[in-house]
Amino acid sequence: MDFQASEKSQAYLAKLIAFMDEHVYPQEQAIIAENRRLNEHTLWQHWQVPSAITALKQQAKAAGLWNLFLPDADLGQGLSCLEYAPLAEETGKVFFAPEIFNCNAPDTGNMEVLYHFGNAQQKQQWLTPLLNGDIRSVFAMTEPDVASSDATNMQARIDVEGDNLVLNGTKWWTTGLGHPNATVAIFMGLSNPENAKHNQHSMVIVPLDTPGVTIKRMLTANQDYDAPYGHGEVQFTDVRVPKSNLLVGTGKGFAIAQGRLGPGRIHHCMRAIGAAERCLALMIKRGMSRVAFGQPIIKLGGNLERVAQARMAIDQARLLTLNAAWKIDNVGVKHAMTEISAIKVVVPNMLQMVSDMAIQVHGGSGVSGDVPLASFNAMARMLRLADGPDEVHMAMVSRLELAKYR
Amino acid sequence: MDFQASEKSQAYLAKLIAFMDEHVYPQEQAIIAENRRLNEHTLWQHWQVPSAITALKQQAKAAGLWNLFLPDADLGQGLSCLEYAPLAEETGKVFFAPEIFNCNAPDTGNMEVLYHFGNAQQKQQWLTPLLNGDIRSVFAMTEPDVASSDATNMQARIDVEGDNLVLNGTKWWTTGLGHPNATVAIFMGLSNPENAKHNQHSMVIVPLDTPGVTIKRMLTANQDYDAPYGHGEVQFTDVRVPKSNLLVGTGKGFAIAQGRLGPGRIHHCMRAIGAAERCLALMIKRGMSRVAFGQPIIKLGGNLERVAQARMAIDQARLLTLNAAWKIDNVGVKHAMTEISAIKVVVPNMLQMVSDMAIQVHGGSGVSGDVPLASFNAMARMLRLADGPDEVHMAMVSRLELAKYR
Amino acid sequence: MDFQASEKSQAYLAKLIAFMDEHVYPQEQAIIAENRRLNEHTLWQHWQVPSAITALKQQAKAAGLWNLFLPDADLGQGLSCLEYAPLAEETGKVFFAPEIFNCNAPDTGNMEVLYHFGNAQQKQQWLTPLLNGDIRSVFAMTEPDVASSDATNMQARIDVEGDNLVLNGTKWWTTGLGHPNATVAIFMGLSNPENAKHNQHSMVIVPLDTPGVTIKRMLTANQDYDAPYGHGEVQFTDVRVPKSNLLVGTGKGFAIAQGRLGPGRIHHCMRAIGAAERCLALMIKRGMSRVAFGQPIIKLGGNLERVAQARMAIDQARLLTLNAAWKIDNVGVKHAMTEISAIKVVVPNMLQMVSDMAIQVHGGSGVSGDVPLASFNAMARMLRLADGPDEVHMAMVSRLELAKYR
Amino acid sequence: MDFQASEKSQAYLAKLIAFMDEHVYPQEQAIIAENRRLNEHTLWQHWQVPSAITALKQQAKAAGLWNLFLPDADLGQGLSCLEYAPLAEETGKVFFAPEIFNCNAPDTGNMEVLYHFGNAQQKQQWLTPLLNGDIRSVFAMTEPDVASSDATNMQARIDVEGDNLVLNGTKWWTTGLGHPNATVAIFMGLSNPENAKHNQHSMVIVPLDTPGVTIKRMLTANQDYDAPYGHGEVQFTDVRVPKSNLLVGTGKGFAIAQGRLGPGRIHHCMRAIGAAERCLALMIKRGMSRVAFGQPIIKLGGNLERVAQARMAIDQARLLTLNAAWKIDNVGVKHAMTEISAIKVVVPNMLQMVSDMAIQVHGGSGVSGDVPLASFNAMARMLRLADGPDEVHMAMVSRLELAKYR
Repeated sequence: MDFQASEKSQAYLAKLIAFMDEHVYPQEQAIIAENRRLNEHTLWQHWQVPSAITALKQQAKAAGLWNLFLPDADLGQGLSCLEYAPLAEETGKVFFAPEIFNCNAPDTGNMEVLYHFGNAQQKQQWLTPLLNGDIRSVFAMTEPDVASSDATNMQARIDVEGDNLVLNGTKWWTTGLGHPNATVAIFMGLSNPENAKHNQHSMVIVPLDTPGVTIKRMLTANQDYDAPYGHGEVQFTDVRVPKSNLLVGTGKGFAIAQGRLGPGRIHHCMRAIGAAERCLALMIKRGMSRVAFGQPIIKLGGNLERVAQARMAIDQARLLTLNAAWKIDNVGVKHAMTEISAIKVVVPNMLQMVSDMAIQVHGGSGVSGDVPLASFNAMARMLRLADGPDEVHMAMVSRLELAKYR
Repeated sequence: MDFQASEKSQAYLAKLIAFMDEHVYPQEQAIIAENRRLNEHTLWQHWQVPSAITALKQQAKAAGLWNLFLPDADLGQGLSCLEYAPLAEETGKVFFAPEIFNCNAPDTGNMEVLYHFGNAQQKQQWLTPLLNGDIRSVFAMTEPDVASSDATNMQARIDVEGDNLVLNGTKWWTTGLGHPNATVAIFMGLSNPENAKHNQHSMVIVPLDTPGVTIKRMLTANQDYDAPYGHGEVQFTDVRVPKSNLLVGTGKGFAIAQGRLGPGRIHHCMRAIGAAERCLALMIKRGMSRVAFGQPIIKLGGNLERVAQARMAIDQARLLTLNAAWKIDNVGVKHAMTEISAIKVVVPNMLQMVSDMAIQVHGGSGVSGDVPLASFNAMARMLRLADGPDEVHMAMVSRLELAKYR
Repeated sequence: MDFQASEKSQAYLAKLIAFMDEHVYPQEQAIIAENRRLNEHTLWQHWQVPSAITALKQQAKAAGLWNLFLPDADLGQGLSCLEYAPLAEETGKVFFAPEIFNCNAPDTGNMEVLYHFGNAQQKQQWLTPLLNGDIRSVFAMTEPDVASSDATNMQARIDVEGDNLVLNGTKWWTTGLGHPNATVAIFMGLSNPENAKHNQHSMVIVPLDTPGVTIKRMLTANQDYDAPYGHGEVQFTDVRVPKSNLLVGTGKGFAIAQGRLGPGRIHHCMRAIGAAERCLALMIKRGMSRVAFGQPIIKLGGNLERVAQARMAIDQARLLTLNAAWKIDNVGVKHAMTEISAIKVVVPNMLQMVSDMAIQVHGGSGVSGDVPLASFNAMARMLRLADGPDEVHMAMVSRLELAKYR
Repeated sequence: MDFQASEKSQAYLAKLIAFMDEHVYPQEQAIIAENRRLNEHTLWQHWQVPSAITALKQQAKAAGLWNLFLPDADLGQGLSCLEYAPLAEETGKVFFAPEIFNCNAPDTGNMEVLYHFGNAQQKQQWLTPLLNGDIRSVFAMTEPDVASSDATNMQARIDVEGDNLVLNGTKWWTTGLGHPNATVAIFMGLSNPENAKHNQHSMVIVPLDTPGVTIKRMLTANQDYDAPYGHGEVQFTDVRVPKSNLLVGTGKGFAIAQGRLGPGRIHHCMRAIGAAERCLALMIKRGMSRVAFGQPIIKLGGNLERVAQARMAIDQARLLTLNAAWKIDNVGVKHAMTEISAIKVVVPNMLQMVSDMAIQVHGGSGVSGDVPLASFNAMARMLRLADGPDEVHMAMVSRLELAKYR
C-alpha cells in the first residue's frame, strides 16, 4: 500500500504540470470561447475542433506527454495505474485537457480493449491510429429501450451470416460520436442468447461509415451537447461487418468489459478529483476576493466549514482511488472489486458536492460559462450514471460485504 | 392558518388543471421540440417564440386563466396569495406553462412593482401592455463586478441631469432579455450615495431601445441559454430617460424591492413544488415500468425510501410555503420575514434533491432533454442563487431567531 | 386545513404555559436532581417518584390541565387532536412534564384503547383509575426473539382454556414497567394462527400482579434506565386471566392497534417538536453567552446557518404534524396514512438533528446531565425505533405513493 | 506514503488478534455484566474494576502486548505511529480492550507527555508506574466556566509561592478520575498572563491526594457515568505542589499540548475505526439473521445501500488516518496539521453515522446494553467534542487551505 508516486511518475508529473502551466491554462478561456464560436450554434454534423487543441496535441506528443494511460512501455509510457493516477488528476483540472495528451475517454478504454483483446490485424488497423491520435472511437453499449444499468438487458443483436456479422439495434449515450474524427465504434450486442447470462454478448469493431449505421441525433447531457464530442443516439440496421471484426470470440463481451473495467475507473475518478481541486481553488479565490456585508464572502456563514468539508472529502476520495489503483497494480482487478465500485460512487458524488459548493460561493457567475464549475458539476452528474449508476455499485459493495459473513 | 384553498381558488384550480390536461401536456413535447428547432442553434438576436405558445396564451386569456397572480379583481382575478398558490404549483409542472397564463417571472414581479408603485402614466404605458401579454419586461439589478448577494454593493449609477436621469453601469442575469418581446427594463442603481445604506438606490423604468443600452451577450445558466428568454449581460452607457420614469422617488429602491418581495417568493416556490411533484411522478412511473436485475427499478436499493423522502420533503415544503402565503395575506410581508426567507432556502433545495433522485432512477434519459428533469434540476440550482443565495436567507432566518433572545 | 388553534385550545395553551412557567420550569433542575438522588444508584425494584411530581400532578388536576389528550368532553377536556397538538408541544419541553398533566405515554395510548374498545366493566376497572392518575399502565407488544418491526412476527401466545386466557411469551421494551404505580399491561399476542395475517392477534388486559408475570430486567435505552419509568423485559409463563379481560374479541389485535395509531403519533411528534424548540432555545442562549476566539460561539463557523436549519426543520415538522392532526380530526385516520407515517419519520429525525447541533454548541455540558439535550437526543433516537422504525414508515409512504400510479 | 503495515506491525497484529479472539471476545459480555453489577448502582467513590480486566492486563503484559502505543523500543514496543495504527483499530472493537494492553486514554497521552517532556525524576516517579499499569492518570484542562474549545480561555491559575506552585480553579471532563487507580493529574493552567497568548499557560503534575483537590462529582456523558472511569468535575483550591512538578517550564503548556497532539489523534481515530468495523459487522449479522416482511432485514428498504455507505466511509476514514500517521512518522506533526485536524472531524462523524445505522437495523436491541452499539454511538458523540469540537478543527483545515492562496 505504497501510494507514493514513483520517481518516474513524479518526473512525468512535473513535466505535465509545467506543460499545463505554460500551454494549457493560458489558452483555456480562449479555447473554450473558440469552441463556442465554432460549435455552439452549429448542427452537430458541422462541429469542428478548435485548432489550438490540435496544435496542443502535437506539442504534447512532441514533449512525450502522450498515451500516458497505457502501461505498455513502447506504445505508451510504461506507467502503472498508480503511476498514472496523479497525471490523470492533473489533466482533469481543465475540461478538454485529457484529449491533448491522448488520454481521453472513451478512447482510452477502447485502446485498452484493443491492446489487451485485439488481434494483430485489429491492432494495426485501429489501435495504431488511435494511439497516434489520428482518429477517435466510440463505445456503443447503452440502449434507450432497456434499463442498461443491468447490462444483461441489452437487446441489440449480433447475428452470423456466412462470413459476416449482422448488427441490429439502437444505442445511445455513445459519447464522442459527434466528433469530426470519430471513425470507429466498439459495439456490444446479444450474439448467443442460448448461453449463460454473462456469456450471451459479444463485442464487435464497427467502422462508423459502414452502411446501416445511422446517427439519429446528439443528446443533450444536462442541457449541453458537449460539442464537439457529443453523446449520440445511433441506429444499427442490418450493419454487416466481417467476422474478423469480432473481438476475442462470441460470448466474450462481458469478459472483455470486465477486463476494461478497473483502470478506466481510476482514470475518470482521478480526473474528477482534479476537477474537484480546481473547484475548491476557484471557490477560495473567489471567496477571498469578493466582499459582502463587510467581509470576504469566504468568511460568511458556513463557507469556511465548506472549504474544510471539501478538503476532507477530496483527500479521502483521492486516497480511496489511489488505494484502488494500487490494488489493481498489485493484486489485480478481480481482488479489487469493492475498491473499484466504491470509488465509482464516492468520487463523482464528492465532485458533485464540491462543485455545488463552489458554485454557491460564486453566485451567478458560478452557473455561467465564465468558470468551469457548471461543466464540472454536470460532469459529476453524468459520472453518477455513466458506467453504471451509484446504486448498482453500492449493490456490488454490499454484496461483497455480506459475502464475508456467509 | 387556514391553508385550504377557497372555493374560488378551487374553481380556478379545476379549470386550470383541465386546461393543462387538454391543451398543455399534450403539446409539451412538441413545443419543446419546436423551441429547439427554432432557437437551439440560433444566435439570441434571432430567437423566436414557438407559435403554439402564442396560441395557448390566447386560449388561456379567453378562458379567464390570465394574470392569476395579481390580487386586483379588475386587472387580475382577485386571488389572494394563498388562493393563487395552488395554481402556481400547477403551472410549475411544465417549464413554459407560466408564460401561457401571463404568470411568468420576471414579468409578474415587475407588474407588481408597477401596480403598487407606478403612477397613472407609468401604469398606462407599461403595466397595461404587460397585463395584456403584449410585451415583456426585465429586471436589471445584479452586477458582474460586485457581490450582488449584498445588494447595497450595487455600483450602477443613476444621476440627475436636468429633467433626465442618466444611467451608467453593467448588469447581468437580466433574465428574459433575449425574448423577442422584451421591451422594457426596471433598472436599479445608486442615486443617493449620501443617504443611509438602504436609501441610496432608486428604480427607474428604461425602455430597452433607449440609446446607450447595449446587450453584450446572453449567459448560459447551467450550460443552457434558456432560449427564447435568456439571461443577459447588458451595458448602460449614458442612458438618458426622463425623470418621469423614476419609480416613487429617489432613494426608494430598497423600499420598492421589499414590497415586491413576498408574493414573488410564494410564486416561484409554488412553481418549484409543482416541478418537484412532476419529478416524483416521473420517477415513480419510470421506476415502475423499467426492469433491472429481475425487479422494477423502483424496488431496487434505496429507491422506495427515496420516494418516501421525496414525498415527505415536498409535503413539508408545500406547507411551509402555504403558511408563508397565509401570513403575507393575513399579517403582511413585514411579519413574515422568517417564513419568506425560509421557503427561499427550503424549496429550491428540495427541488434540487427530488429532481436529482428522479434523474438517477431514469438513468441516461434523466439527464437528456427527453424528460424535463435536467431542466428542473438546473432551475432549482438557479433558484438557490437568484434573489439571494441560500446563505443570505439563512443569515436572515438566524438573525431573526437570535433577536428573540435579545 | 385550518391549523389555527381554536379559541378553546388557545385558552388551554395560555393556561398551560402559565402553569409551566410558574410551577414546572422553576422546579425542573430540582426534580431532575431529586430523581437522580432517588433512583440513579437504585435497583429498579426500589425506584420512587420524586414527591414534587406527585404534587405537581395534583396542582395540574386542580387547574383543569388534566387528561388534555382525551377528546371526550367529560373524561378529558374535549379537545380535538389539532386542539391538543400545541399543548402537547408545550409539555414536550420538559422531560417529565407530560406525566404531570396525565398525558404521558404509554398511558395515553392505553387509555385511548380502553376508551374506544373497552367494555363498561373494563373501563370502570382500568380506565377510571388511569384517568385519575392513580395507576399506570404498560403496553406489552415488542418481543426480543423476532423482528417486531413486522408485528405479524409476534410469537407470544394467547390460548383459551375454559373461561380463561392463558398467556405465554416474552416481551421487552415494555416502557413504564419499572414505575412504582405500574399496575396493568395491555398484552398483544397470537391467538388465532389459523386466521388471515392481520386477524391472528388479540389484546388482553393483564394485571401485573397476575401469577406468571415475571419482570426479568429493565433495559438501558441509550445507556439510561429512564428511572422511574424503565423499559422492561417481562416473561409471561402460563399467565391466566379471565376471558372478560379480552379487548373486543379474538383476532382484533391489529384492528385495535390501528385505531390507537393516529392520535398517539400526533402526541409524541408534538412533544418532540416542543423538545426541539427547547434545544434550539438552549443552543442560541448558550451560543450567545459564551465567547471563543473573540466571538460569541453562535457566530463562529456554520453555527448561524445551523440555527436557521433548525428553525426551518422545526417549522416544517410542525406544519406536517398539524396537517396530520387536522386530517385525523376531519377525514379520519384511514385517510391520513401517508401523513401519520410521514411525521413518524420526519419529526424524530428532526429532533435528533436539532439536539445534536445544540449539543455541539454547548460543548461538554451538552452531553452532561446539566442540560436536557442528551436526554432529548436519546429520546429522538428511541422514537426512530419505537412504534416501528423509520424504514417501516418510509415503506408505508412509498407504498401509498406507488398505489397512485396503479 | 506506504501505508502497508511493516512485518513487525503485522506480527504484533496477528498476536493481538489471536489474543482478542482467545481472551477478550469470549469474556466481553461477562465483563460488561460484571462491570454493571459492580458499578451501575454504586456511588463513584466505590467503583471497582472487574477482576477479569486486571487478569487480562497481566496476560497481555506477559504476552508482550503492552504499551504498544509507545514508539520507544525499551519502554514500549518500538512501533511507529503507522505501525501501531492497525493495532489500535483492533483494540477499538471492544470498549474496554485498550486498557488491557495499557493503551487507553488519557494515560497514553499523559505517558507521552512525561516521556517527551518529563525530567528524570518525574519519569521515575510517574512514568514508570504508568507504564507498569500500576496507577492511572487524568488530564485536567477543560473548564466549566469558559468555552474551552478556545483553550486560551482557560482561567485556572498557577501561581508561584516560594518553592511551590499554587493551583486554583475548576476543571471538568477530567476523564478517568473515578477509577480506583487514578493517582495523578496533569493540570494545565494560567501561569503567565503577561506573555503572548500561547505562552501564558503551564502544565503541572498534581498527585490527586494533594490537599485542596476536591472531586465534586462525576458527570454523565450521554446519560452514562462510564464507570469505573468516569468524567470528573474537580475543584483545585490552593493546591500546593513543589516547583519540581512543573513540566518543562512556565508558559510551555501549549508547546507541550502541541507535541502531545498528533499520535493521540491517530490512536483514538483508529480505535473509532475499529469500533465502526464492529458496528458494521454486527449490523450485517443481525440484518442477515432476522426476518421481517418475508425478507432478511438487511435486504429491506435502503439497508444494503447503508452497508455500502458504511464500508465506503470506513475505508476512506481509515486511509485518511493512516495517511496522517504516515505523515507524523515521516514529516512530523507540524507538517501534518491539516491531516491531524481532518481525521478529528471525519472519523468520529463516520462512527456516529455507522453506529446509528447499525442501531437502526438492530431495532430495540440496538439501543440496549446487550450490544455495544449505543456505547460506540455515545463514544462517537463524545469524540466530536473531546479535544476540540468538529468546528474548531474545520476552522483549522480551512485556515490552512486559505493560507495556500495568500
